[in-house]
Amino acid sequence: MQRRHFVGTLFAAPAVLKGAKRSFSYAEVERMLVTGEVRGRLTKDEIASPALLLDMDAFEANVAKMAAHCKQQQRALRPHGKTHKCPDIAKAMIRAGAVGACGAKLGEAEVFAANGVSGLLVTTAVIGKHKIERAIDLARKQPDTIFSVDNAQNVNDLDEAAGAARIRLNLAIDLFVSNRTGIIPGEPALALAQHIDRKKHLRLHGIQAYAGGASHVTGFEARQRRSLADMTPAVETRRLIEKNGISCPWLSGGSTGTYNIDSEIDGITELQPGSFIFMDIDYNRIGGKSGPVYQDFQNSLTVLTTVVSKPNDRQAVVDGGLKAFSTDKPFPPVAKDIEGMIYHWGGDEHGRLDVSNASREVKIGDRIEFMVPHCDPSVNLYDRIYRVRGDQVEGVWRIAARGVSQ
Amino acid sequence: MQRRHFVGTLFAAPAVLKGAKRSFSYAEVERMLVTGEVRGRLTKDEIASPALLLDMDAFEANVAKMAAHCKQQQRALRPHGKTHKCPDIAKAMIRAGAVGACGAKLGEAEVFAANGVSGLLVTTAVIGKHKIERAIDLARKQPDTIFSVDNAQNVNDLDEAAGAARIRLNLAIDLFVSNRTGIIPGEPALALAQHIDRKKHLRLHGIQAYAGGASHVTGFEARQRRSLADMTPAVETRRLIEKNGISCPWLSGGSTGTYNIDSEIDGITELQPGSFIFMDIDYNRIGGKSGPVYQDFQNSLTVLTTVVSKPNDRQAVVDGGLKAFSTDKPFPPVAKDIEGMIYHWGGDEHGRLDVSNASREVKIGDRIEFMVPHCDPSVNLYDRIYRVRGDQVEGVWRIAARGVSQ
Repeated sequence: MQRRHFVGTLFAAPAVLKGAKRSFSYAEVERMLVTGEVRGRLTKDEIASPALLLDMDAFEANVAKMAAHCKQQQRALRPHGKTHKCPDIAKAMIRAGAVGACGAKLGEAEVFAANGVSGLLVTTAVIGKHKIERAIDLARKQPDTIFSVDNAQNVNDLDEAAGAARIRLNLAIDLFVSNRTGIIPGEPALALAQHIDRKKHLRLHGIQAYAGGASHVTGFEARQRRSLADMTPAVETRRLIEKNGISCPWLSGGSTGTYNIDSEIDGITELQPGSFIFMDIDYNRIGGKSGPVYQDFQNSLTVLTTVVSKPNDRQAVVDGGLKAFSTDKPFPPVAKDIEGMIYHWGGDEHGRLDVSNASREVKIGDRIEFMVPHCDPSVNLYDRIYRVRGDQVEGVWRIAARGVSQ
Repeated sequence: MQRRHFVGTLFAAPAVLKGAKRSFSYAEVERMLVTGEVRGRLTKDEIASPALLLDMDAFEANVAKMAAHCKQQQRALRPHGKTHKCPDIAKAMIRAGAVGACGAKLGEAEVFAANGVSGLLVTTAVIGKHKIERAIDLARKQPDTIFSVDNAQNVNDLDEAAGAARIRLNLAIDLFVSNRTGIIPGEPALALAQHIDRKKHLRLHGIQAYAGGASHVTGFEARQRRSLADMTPAVETRRLIEKNGISCPWLSGGSTGTYNIDSEIDGITELQPGSFIFMDIDYNRIGGKSGPVYQDFQNSLTVLTTVVSKPNDRQAVVDGGLKAFSTDKPFPPVAKDIEGMIYHWGGDEHGRLDVSNASREVKIGDRIEFMVPHCDPSVNLYDRIYRVRGDQVEGVWRIAARGVSQ
């Protein structure tokens, strides 16, 4: 005891080396986070709210699980970058076995490419003179980039630009399998494949088929039926194109909701799920293979808030509102560690908490973490995501493509 | 004819000097916009979508109208910066007669201060060691900044920090007049005023009272009744504090929905409206003094999109979805120049347009401008706002406090 006490005293300063908690100034915290040099015990308490937190244990488990699933099922994994918009996250998944990353828009893919990510698939058609100009630049930088097309005029425009630039572009035919973009499966898609095949400066890589209508169907069996119905025409279109002598070795689809459905469908060669890394209230609600709550993946994403006002015993107000959370779903954020508390939207900058039945007292200055209704548009509100493990902050990752929807 | 043709030829190059339209590369456009040197005829067609546009004629008319109203009613105007988050817009309003700008959060006010805006009012309480540290820094930079408080402990914390820094902080008592933050009007507020009055390093500037519940009441008379009910306790609290020998010369309130109601109430000395500069579908729906559509101010704000897919004759898809528009209201964006077309949310990055009854044909590559459901959270999605006049782009303003809710 005597000796341990002595050793403890001897090494007590500097406290940071021992992991003992000390208090930092705001400027010190910012310096540590921006330089990435987090030393000692920086805890969540030191972060300015509202802030986006990533529980690294949960995140790493999610990535490992999806990577193992794809490996076992012999499908490529190209996670969708619109969920995270963060080159560091894209690279973490490539290290875990992903072949690259999807960008919903050209701009997102440009940010990934500028940060060293290859294996890019742009899932929205590149329309207009300027965007085609940028697509050519991107293909020069990352020649394995795949661009989606769904109409003949766009094919002509891309071929002309690629010819002028003396490069060859890889194209994916975007298929209308749900209810958004794409060309009609079957004969129309075949005609487009033939049109691409005749172009000198284009190469058909395969088919891009996102069944957005299937991914959020509630109940595993219903979701399975819907995804099969949506994806079968894609598989058949791929076969039709190949039967007509055009190489079409690749079909990319799938989502967090259908990853274990689509990977059972013969002919789908690649999955492009996004939300599984974070999860959200919306995905929790769709139901899993073995229960009413979908929890194949852990909720790794929260928004940290602070109680800034308590007008009366029933109501507390946190500093996160319409600008801190996605608002496109018909349900509000849910606190991670407090039961019986209800969040009501309180305008741009605040949330009103009904604490009448809260499982613990809520005071001014308290920090409360909330799960988000929908992860993608929530992440798009923040410039950085804090990497936390337990209570410790390991650092920040830049959400470099935040707001980049162009 | 012969002579005019000759002159035309003579001055044809460079075309930019003549105002003749020519086509720019993407890189040229970016260079012009970033340096602010827009030369010649840069039109909306050259902007990468989705993009936030500000119709300068409408914006300037809105600012002039509100400034004239406040001048005539002898009220100060301190427009709320949470709407625009743009130092250039704050400064444009100060040039038109505003006394400063509100920041919903400390971080917003910091961005305004760093860009030369004074007369700042922070409308959310500054809670926690780091935020108080930052508030002291802000007060050093802009000593006329006013900070809102609604509880005694926070008053103690601010006094202690101001004492240590050897400065004096200006405080506003945030009053619970609607249903969000603040202390209860009357005796509780008086006690807080007395508490502040006893502190050596604090100065009571007056009362901050935002009646968020009144601003969006539909129908002018109903709105008037609600605002009177909400704001009367604020006016009475101000009198009560003064009757008790404490100077309380200032009461700030009002919104775009109640500017012409609150400016009729004796005792309110300042208005802090925000949305009037832009307007949105939500405010249009609340009804005006003289009709069912509230149009005291013009809709100056739109989101420019491009049609990127047309899967069939009834449906076109634009490149603006949940990340391009606010989603907190139960109605979608509305096209500015096309009648009979319905926007349906199409996920993070797309909008599905039902064009069955559209007043004109909609083709791939078409550019469509939409009015936004709610201006504040829509603006918060973009890093820049394009200043347009008619079809011309005059330049961009940085939305420097975008995402700054801390």
